[in-house]
Amino acid sequence: MTAVFATSPNLALDEAVNRLRSEGRSLVHLGFGESQLPVPDFLTARLSAGAQRNAYGPIAGAEDVRAAAAGYFTRRGLATYAAQTVLAPGSKPILFALMAALEGSVILPKPCWVTYEPQARLAGRGVLEVPIPAESGGVPDPDRLPEAIRAHRAAGGDPRILLLTLPDNPTGTYPSRAVVRRLCEIAEEEDLLIISDEIYRDILHEDGAAVTSPAEFVPDRTVVTSGLSKSLALGGWRIGFARFPDTEKGRWLRARVLGVGSEIWSTLAGPMQEVAVHALSEPDEVVAHLSASARLHGSVAAAVHTIVTEAGAVCRKPTGGFYVYPDFEPVRAVLAAKSVTDSASLQEFLIERLGVAVLGGHHLGDVPGCLRFRAATSMLYGGTPAERWAALRDPDPVRLPHVANQLNTLRDAFLRLTA
Amino acid sequence: MTAVFATSPNLALDEAVNRLRSEGRSLVHLGFGESQLPVPDFLTARLSAGAQRNAYGPIAGAEDVRAAAAGYFTRRGLATYAAQTVLAPGSKPILFALMAALEGSVILPKPCWVTYEPQARLAGRGVLEVPIPAESGGVPDPDRLPEAIRAHRAAGGDPRILLLTLPDNPTGTYPSRAVVRRLCEIAEEEDLLIISDEIYRDILHEDGAAVTSPAEFVPDRTVVTSGLSKSLALGGWRIGFARFPDTEKGRWLRARVLGVGSEIWSTLAGPMQEVAVHALSEPDEVVAHLSASARLHGSVAAAVHTIVTEAGAVCRKPTGGFYVYPDFEPVRAVLAAKSVTDSASLQEFLIERLGVAVLGGHHLGDVPGCLRFRAATSMLYGGTPAERWAALRDPDPVRLPHVANQLNTLRDAFLRLTA
Repeated sequence: MTAVFATSPNLALDEAVNRLRSEGRSLVHLGFGESQLPVPDFLTARLSAGAQRNAYGPIAGAEDVRAAAAGYFTRRGLATYAAQTVLAPGSKPILFALMAALEGSVILPKPCWVTYEPQARLAGRGVLEVPIPAESGGVPDPDRLPEAIRAHRAAGGDPRILLLTLPDNPTGTYPSRAVVRRLCEIAEEEDLLIISDEIYRDILHEDGAAVTSPAEFVPDRTVVTSGLSKSLALGGWRIGFARFPDTEKGRWLRARVLGVGSEIWSTLAGPMQEVAVHALSEPDEVVAHLSASARLHGSVAAAVHTIVTEAGAVCRKPTGGFYVYPDFEPVRAVLAAKSVTDSASLQEFLIERLGVAVLGGHHLGDVPGCLRFRAATSMLYGGTPAERWAALRDPDPVRLPHVANQLNTLRDAFLRLTA
Repeated sequence: MTAVFATSPNLALDEAVNRLRSEGRSLVHLGFGESQLPVPDFLTARLSAGAQRNAYGPIAGAEDVRAAAAGYFTRRGLATYAAQTVLAPGSKPILFALMAALEGSVILPKPCWVTYEPQARLAGRGVLEVPIPAESGGVPDPDRLPEAIRAHRAAGGDPRILLLTLPDNPTGTYPSRAVVRRLCEIAEEEDLLIISDEIYRDILHEDGAAVTSPAEFVPDRTVVTSGLSKSLALGGWRIGFARFPDTEKGRWLRARVLGVGSEIWSTLAGPMQEVAVHALSEPDEVVAHLSASARLHGSVAAAVHTIVTEAGAVCRKPTGGFYVYPDFEPVRAVLAAKSVTDSASLQEFLIERLGVAVLGGHHLGDVPGCLRFRAATSMLYGGTPAERWAALRDPDPVRLPHVANQLNTLRDAFLRLTA
């Protein structure tokens, strides 16, 4: 149970980086999954406008914000009533409440976001980790999933919940429609409820690209969670939301989640509900901001992908979000000569010797002996709001001096790592 | 486990009242523990100023807001370092995290706030309820506590946590210094950790009055929780905070609570941290607002106390917060003639026949057969922000027509109840 009560390693790393910097160390911080963009004026205006929302209000959020969330999903091909939605202070509490409200074990892709496993443990759920396929992260390899479920059952486990992250943290990729369809078939066969964490859904690197949600194939057994922390860089504002199935089971589950909500968080803060009404209604200014943000994230993630592969790593090409997840297995011998033999020593070497903060794969549930880590590429947009705005507005942000300099420092560091 | 996943009865009642009103019913709503005052400009200004706090930041809150929270406690006679404090989206999540982080059963005053018991169950804790003394609510009767603990242990229970509410919800009272001291002695003898929920601490009706915190007597075994929901009417803004002991055990517990926080809520929203910096620093405008609010709460609670006692109830005289908790036992025969025989039928009769919404004692852990309920008197200040501001500014608010009318309606309803 130690892990349950330990500080989340990504937040802990962020605090460590701040401490090192306050000691005067120069660091390239790729350790924390934060979008790092400033808040546009049209959102700060809504925050101020929401000030008089100081009453408690409904646990799930007021009618207007639930209607806006319903519209958000409906525009993405999932027709949704306001009564199917829940707002909360981040998607984290919703994910926890789902795990607390359900029974059985949670099936996680390996690697995956640091928080799922301790959340599951805290909620009393067992965990079954299944490696991701070569194609993308965010999902258990469908070729291995049925057998893993059988083995888990044979060992006394009771797998009931399939957790997917689309697009994925840590790999910055998402699976093909065919893979999602296959996972949905397995969910039907094995009677699994799917939690589809789609918090990176609006950050796709290619114009016109689309993520397939499992809710398209098996809407009755899929809960979709999301939030504004990543797409609109509002991590510090804590705005999350979810869509439940329009079925008796869906209503039962939503009521249980609201029951947990009423005991733990009450409701999303009123001014944040006002912000969410605007953001989730997606007027032109929001759409344009999302689009510019996705272009920036894609451009810098691609540049970092080039850097790590040129340094000798293999790495899935990022297609969504703002992460790359390189694997330095091809240069294991070179790293071993530097006493780097696993993801913990790799993380340590990178921060202490090369000034690069990343999150070792072991923190993400990956096998400890691996030479993989997650680099959050969104940390490279600049050190000031002005630099970040410039990066957001530039058609080719990786050529901006303040971005290019960071990328050059990073290139040098990784070439030194594998020299 | 049903209660754990049910919607909190106070929030459920509030939603029911809103539905009845939307159907055109005229109601006096005393059911919900909300301060109902508008937000003063000096706080909305801080909300806007905090907009650029969109980064995640430390789980416990940024350095400035923790320093402000430390100052808040220090000014109340509890010298506190910033490192002893935690901010969160409400005190609810902190209370839940404390119960999840600790072991053993929780000792609750009976009656008490609706949320403690389901929180304890959700966190896997057992519960031991001990009746409150005649003097005040918020604490188990010290004359009965040691024996209740012995009996609980004999039955296999493991009482470890003593939860106090000072001042109290639902009785609107707080115990004398002597009673608090005696409870602290019992906590020492029985090795209990005290969670002192002091969210109503800044709402004392008598000028110059002071609540005694158990942290004054046994600081090493007391965690104090609080928030701005009640004193500054910011329930919908979700701002809570806590103070941990400055001991090894206190640091251990705080780290565990932050571990739970990192998995469930991440941090208090940045703009709300900005608000809390100002509110907890308590400049003159905040002190004056707190003082005016406390005077209004005291004045109206006293008027309602007069009404229910004149109708035949016995009732502790309210001294803090904005509740009264009358007991209609003296007129049981009269009520029985109306088929009102317990707190559920009393609540039902009051809302359906007399148009008065209150929360029956059974929802607060009281014995089901009792004829007690909680009336939240803060719901009587008016139907518009202008009326509420007028009530706040008036030296004698119960004479304002819009308040007096509500009180008259209430007086009539209770006289009809016991006629």
